[in-house]
Amino acid sequence: MVLLRHLFGDALRRRRQHQGRTLREVAGTARISLGYLSEVERGHKEVSSELLMAICTALDLRMSEVMREVSDELARWEATDSALEPIEATYPLAGDRAATNVAA
Amino acid sequence: MVLLRHLFGDALRRRRQHQGRTLREVAGTARISLGYLSEVERGHKEVSSELLMAICTALDLRMSEVMREVSDELARWEATDSALEPIEATYPLAGDRAATNVAA
Repeated sequence: MVLLRHLFGDALRRRRQHQGRTLREVAGTARISLGYLSEVERGHKEVSSELLMAICTALDLRMSEVMREVSDELARWEATDSALEPIEATYPLAGDRAATNVAA
Repeated sequence: MVLLRHLFGDALRRRRQHQGRTLREVAGTARISLGYLSEVERGHKEVSSELLMAICTALDLRMSEVMREVSDELARWEATDSALEPIEATYPLAGDRAATNVAA
């Protein structure tokens, strides 16, 4: 299953690597620890509004670009499978919707 | 200044009110506390990936819809003023960009 923080992490890592920059350099510019940035990129830690802003600024990105990228990626997941079901499957609607997509 | 969690909170509250539903009802369906949902809607608390998913499911929304709405709103802020500057103004680029927009 995919979680929002995984998609944020992937998007940030993709942008950083595309710029040919190291974790250390971006973390330094954003004034956050290298370990924290690494955890965020791997989708292990939720990123707060302030820290996402700091990371985007360090990467010279608009936050809305990153949000749009994540939203598009999410939409693809939602359209193609049931990977967005909650961890505890207490919401049968999510599964039903996915099943409907598969049948369509 | 506007923060991502404010935009998420506004978007979630707007959708809930549009559906004519109470905080209590949605919190119950999402299996979160009423107080927590209220804090999220007011932009006082960051929402984790799992809880955002639970709230969206309770509101019968796709997360990507909410993300897209927040991303569009962010883009409007970014285009029109300097409200997205970090709290500690350690990133002169953000201010410069806003100043450029005003001058343009």
